[in-house]
Amino acid sequence: MQQVYFDNAATTQLRSEVITAMVEVMNNNYGNASSSHSFGRSSKSLIEKTRKAVASYLNVSAGEIIFTSGGTEADNLILQSAVRDLKVTHIITSKIEHHAVLHTIEQLVKDYKLVVSYVDLKPNGKIDYLHLETLLKREAKTLVSLMHINNEIGNILNIKKVADLCKANDALFHTDAVQSVGHYNLDLQDVKVDFLAAAAHKFHGPKGVGFAFIRRNSALKPSILGGEQERGLRAGTESVHNIVGMEMALKCAYQNLEKETEYIKNLKQYFISSIEKNIPNATFNGKSGNLEKSTYTLVNVCLPIPPKKAAMLLFQLDLKGIACSKGSACQSGSNQNSHVLTEILSENDLQKPSIRFSFSIYNTKEEIDYVVGVLKAFVE
Amino acid sequence: MQQVYFDNAATTQLRSEVITAMVEVMNNNYGNASSSHSFGRSSKSLIEKTRKAVASYLNVSAGEIIFTSGGTEADNLILQSAVRDLKVTHIITSKIEHHAVLHTIEQLVKDYKLVVSYVDLKPNGKIDYLHLETLLKREAKTLVSLMHINNEIGNILNIKKVADLCKANDALFHTDAVQSVGHYNLDLQDVKVDFLAAAAHKFHGPKGVGFAFIRRNSALKPSILGGEQERGLRAGTESVHNIVGMEMALKCAYQNLEKETEYIKNLKQYFISSIEKNIPNATFNGKSGNLEKSTYTLVNVCLPIPPKKAAMLLFQLDLKGIACSKGSACQSGSNQNSHVLTEILSENDLQKPSIRFSFSIYNTKEEIDYVVGVLKAFVE
Repeated sequence: MQQVYFDNAATTQLRSEVITAMVEVMNNNYGNASSSHSFGRSSKSLIEKTRKAVASYLNVSAGEIIFTSGGTEADNLILQSAVRDLKVTHIITSKIEHHAVLHTIEQLVKDYKLVVSYVDLKPNGKIDYLHLETLLKREAKTLVSLMHINNEIGNILNIKKVADLCKANDALFHTDAVQSVGHYNLDLQDVKVDFLAAAAHKFHGPKGVGFAFIRRNSALKPSILGGEQERGLRAGTESVHNIVGMEMALKCAYQNLEKETEYIKNLKQYFISSIEKNIPNATFNGKSGNLEKSTYTLVNVCLPIPPKKAAMLLFQLDLKGIACSKGSACQSGSNQNSHVLTEILSENDLQKPSIRFSFSIYNTKEEIDYVVGVLKAFVE
Repeated sequence: MQQVYFDNAATTQLRSEVITAMVEVMNNNYGNASSSHSFGRSSKSLIEKTRKAVASYLNVSAGEIIFTSGGTEADNLILQSAVRDLKVTHIITSKIEHHAVLHTIEQLVKDYKLVVSYVDLKPNGKIDYLHLETLLKREAKTLVSLMHINNEIGNILNIKKVADLCKANDALFHTDAVQSVGHYNLDLQDVKVDFLAAAAHKFHGPKGVGFAFIRRNSALKPSILGGEQERGLRAGTESVHNIVGMEMALKCAYQNLEKETEYIKNLKQYFISSIEKNIPNATFNGKSGNLEKSTYTLVNVCLPIPPKKAAMLLFQLDLKGIACSKGSACQSGSNQNSHVLTEILSENDLQKPSIRFSFSIYNTKEEIDYVVGVLKAFVE
């Protein structure tokens, strides 16, 4: 049976170059990077070379990159320490952030004196900048946490604008950039975010590794304590093979960025046209139907299917070998509606099934023809 | 130049079977285990099969194993939640625990109403059980955190005895078993610890993965929040290849345990005899010179070398291609004395250099001859 993987926003296939690099490390560099002998120094030097390379892609210093076990841990490290150590007492975020941000904030509210403000959203999921400005006027040590690219609807936030607003109002700015690192060029000298989270497995790297960008002199402290790894910001023996694999994935991504962006954008354009032609009553959630204002990697389609029939949709797609999702993988086991769509869709549209299709370089137009064909047959 | 790796307590070489298993996963199972489609289910099923296998080696239920990014994270998860969620107000530990335990407790003391008691130690590092019993009488919700095998001096704690004392006094018991899992048989139906931490890279598995054993109904909560992975106890997309690699390492370890224990124990015996023969004034720290009361994997030797000359020792060993350490890798960059030895050695012995040599199946008697030869020449 044909297998089509259209869930690249959940995770991606590893590039073969990444696996090769990881195997080389596993065979040849097993030293503990904290050991002072030659085996240890060899691992340490690999990690620091890698850190420098990762930093260069974002135009930051090596010392501002802290390797973590993934995007979720990076978000937690930043948010927890901002409240615990930087004494942030006011967080501005939105209701359509990833759970790694929302649930962490919910826990922090229980443990600390902290006020959380949710910025208003337009029906397409765009944040209301005027409201954000109003919220920034509050007298409190404030952190803004807004994601760069929404993982469910693909909306791109103007993080430069938000960073400038934050600077002007003396607030800190954290962005979950899990869907954009490795997919978009980011120059953090131009875009003055204070903190950023990324995950390797979203750009064809290994699972279980990511990084936090933590701007110099931010005074963050670790959430995982023990040894002095990662300049004291993250204890635990470094996962050298994973770290090297992540850098290889990032290198491949940025070396081929223009060509691959073009290729995937074409797939998305083709998918949208095919849906419009074959299922004319379908709509696109958020800004995902707009090729400029949403990421080129995903669309989120609301399908004109009655609720009863809709219940069978994902099951049917799965039977046909098609991998896609209702929203974030982190909650796909549940029967609840996506918290993102719940915030932005009308009651009427929420009754209809919405599906996220997300693409990578390993997808083809033939796969789109197949998937749209299956969807069309199901709708009819 | 000859290269001898005698720092297996810091980290170990990966078994080739482990690398092979990891590569297979990276090539064939890239689905996100939280996704409900076939790619996701395939990863999920691999993880759950692995969890069941890991649980079986400790004679516990699969639901009691939580995969983490390593031993340090597992220690942090357990200690942080015990205080934050289980409302532990009294921790009993010792001054010779790993920093993943000690530093985490120090941070908790700052954030919560918490009293820490350090159990008295005998000069050989053995804990004073009578003192422990006295401490357990304190009226407070108490957690005991004592490591199974000390990573610097190899002392084996009678965790069954401690677990029974804890039960009798209604206290919780956490053990950092990073140096024993994969090296000793552990039956957690017999040894009633409540919590345990382990790390794959200490038993020839990959770096960046470990697990926490959390006994059923313990009511622990996550320290890293986000998705509902690991039964809600540890958010973040699972590192499937690392998890599978860890299980393969554990499987190999327990399948060959008797044979390999014998082999390594012989190496240690041979090392001790060679030292006694060639450097008669050397002494063994803790119980590491006793083959029954310390782990078969390491010795910690105090060498009769004056301080001035001693400063050059590790450097000289490194020049000769010998990898060993002053203590925990996590602090080997520093010039400070080991916090463990500082607790148990006399002022006089602390002036002399102490070196930990730790062995694995990949070491040989020829290597020991070489190392003892180098040591002897240096001492003379």
